[in-house]
Amino acid sequence: MSGDLDPHRIVRLEDDAVVVLDQRRLPDEEVELHCTSSAEVAEAIRVLAVRGAPAIGVAAAYGLALAAARGEELGEAIGILAASRPTAVNLRWALEAMRDEPTRARAEQLHADEVERCRRMAAHAVALFPAATRVLTHCNTGALATGGYGSALGAIRAAWEAGRVSHVWVDETRPLLQGGRLTAWELEQLGIPFAVIVDGAAASLMAGGEVDLVVTGADRIAANGDTANKVGTYALAVAAAHHDLPFAVVAPTSTLDPAARTGDDIPIEERDATELTSRFPARNPAFDVTPAALVDAIVTERGVHRAPYAESLPRVAEVER
Amino acid sequence: MSGDLDPHRIVRLEDDAVVVLDQRRLPDEEVELHCTSSAEVAEAIRVLAVRGAPAIGVAAAYGLALAAARGEELGEAIGILAASRPTAVNLRWALEAMRDEPTRARAEQLHADEVERCRRMAAHAVALFPAATRVLTHCNTGALATGGYGSALGAIRAAWEAGRVSHVWVDETRPLLQGGRLTAWELEQLGIPFAVIVDGAAASLMAGGEVDLVVTGADRIAANGDTANKVGTYALAVAAAHHDLPFAVVAPTSTLDPAARTGDDIPIEERDATELTSRFPARNPAFDVTPAALVDAIVTERGVHRAPYAESLPRVAEVER
Repeated sequence: MSGDLDPHRIVRLEDDAVVVLDQRRLPDEEVELHCTSSAEVAEAIRVLAVRGAPAIGVAAAYGLALAAARGEELGEAIGILAASRPTAVNLRWALEAMRDEPTRARAEQLHADEVERCRRMAAHAVALFPAATRVLTHCNTGALATGGYGSALGAIRAAWEAGRVSHVWVDETRPLLQGGRLTAWELEQLGIPFAVIVDGAAASLMAGGEVDLVVTGADRIAANGDTANKVGTYALAVAAAHHDLPFAVVAPTSTLDPAARTGDDIPIEERDATELTSRFPARNPAFDVTPAALVDAIVTERGVHRAPYAESLPRVAEVER
Repeated sequence: MSGDLDPHRIVRLEDDAVVVLDQRRLPDEEVELHCTSSAEVAEAIRVLAVRGAPAIGVAAAYGLALAAARGEELGEAIGILAASRPTAVNLRWALEAMRDEPTRARAEQLHADEVERCRRMAAHAVALFPAATRVLTHCNTGALATGGYGSALGAIRAAWEAGRVSHVWVDETRPLLQGGRLTAWELEQLGIPFAVIVDGAAASLMAGGEVDLVVTGADRIAANGDTANKVGTYALAVAAAHHDLPFAVVAPTSTLDPAARTGDDIPIEERDATELTSRFPARNPAFDVTPAALVDAIVTERGVHRAPYAESLPRVAEVER
């Protein structure tokens, strides 16, 4: 298997299966998972073999095309796929987009659109990077998360190619270590200099003057700009504000949810305590909400959006859909 | 082995060895490590089989008594023990206190004093807990860390006994999980209700109104109140300030270092990258420094101290020594 990050290496449709690169096994092993029904695709999403809001949407689209080809009852397939992760709004968005035409061609187009969207996002986001930026990021928002080029990590990749990145700080992102496993793996493949840190070290790196910019992705963005993303994002935004550092969100418009007025309308998925500890009680929210007031810019494929987001975001969402 | 937290279960001197409960193996196994020379005690400290600033001091004191009993060259033994962890000021303090009388009786006295100091700290700190406090803590600062009753966790224990604690949030404390492994183990033994969280979730629990107080220990406190403690402490202090929550440090006066004018004078131990990740580059500072401005109270065995610490702390240190 080559070292590049071809979108079809992350997720693709074959004749009898949706094939996903199993992200639970990275970086130690590169193993593909063959999902031969919509239920198996939903299960792959549920167990995080495929993860990242846009990649989930693409996998679900392929899953619905597979379901149609197999003659599954489509309403049921949509229900099963939609229920696989409660927070990801573009999972349901992708399923809606597929409903009337659940074909392989439509799913392929949706995947290609997603890659193109990432590239446009990244191109817009480069403007946020000064020369020799030491950028800090959280979780994984790269090719793996999007099935394509990446959102926040795509922005870092484009900024690196433009000569504007000197170093990437990678939050390991407990409990599932998407940063320490997946973002690190992608940066290694791309040859971009980086170091993994524990999530708790980010604030002190900022205090030490070793961070210029924080960029993260988003799982879901409310109409007012409140942003739900991997747990730990809010702590970064608070720390960035305390140190007068810019905090930017890079996410496709499919992540915008005009139906959610504020972050209070976004349900937070509580995952199993055993992800943290096998023997003690635990609280394990998968996401947190960063209030719009702490977000300096939201970058979508349509441009760089600024506060007041209640005015800038709804327009963007309407144009796109 | 009983479920209580007898100080001599954590660390003790036997005829031919310093015996420590190996904290690397907890909570899965309760295994004792027999250190038969000062070099072996230093190694147990270096590899974190015994950890926590006060417990390290006690172990080193026993180590020096063992060295004297074995006829080791004492200057060399002091050097080896002092070098085992660079940040812990009370390691060197304990060795100084033992230098002129490196006997078992002196080490036992130093250990008993440490336990007594913890109990006094805890009694003072109870005043910081309102009724039904939901308290958040970081790392392990209990019986294991102090060889006795605990500093910050001792305060929580005393406040629980006084009926003032309703819940304890335990930061798992990456990379070595002292919270998720050791603090959780102690709270389970004490029957205090708790839940483990990832370090990155603390800020969002605060935003959700589920935290009333943050208490941590300290590895070393500068004359101006700047506090070095386990990495991630500073992020908590920043988040607590952002949410107008009190942030208190509970630590014995042996942690005060009048020779360090500010946090800038405290060296930060950089530990091996493999504690985080076995295959990628990493940055792994073991501690961070919380500026005094973010610390609402410092509690020692002599009382509750408030800003300006540059006035209140040096007096306390002088009285004690």
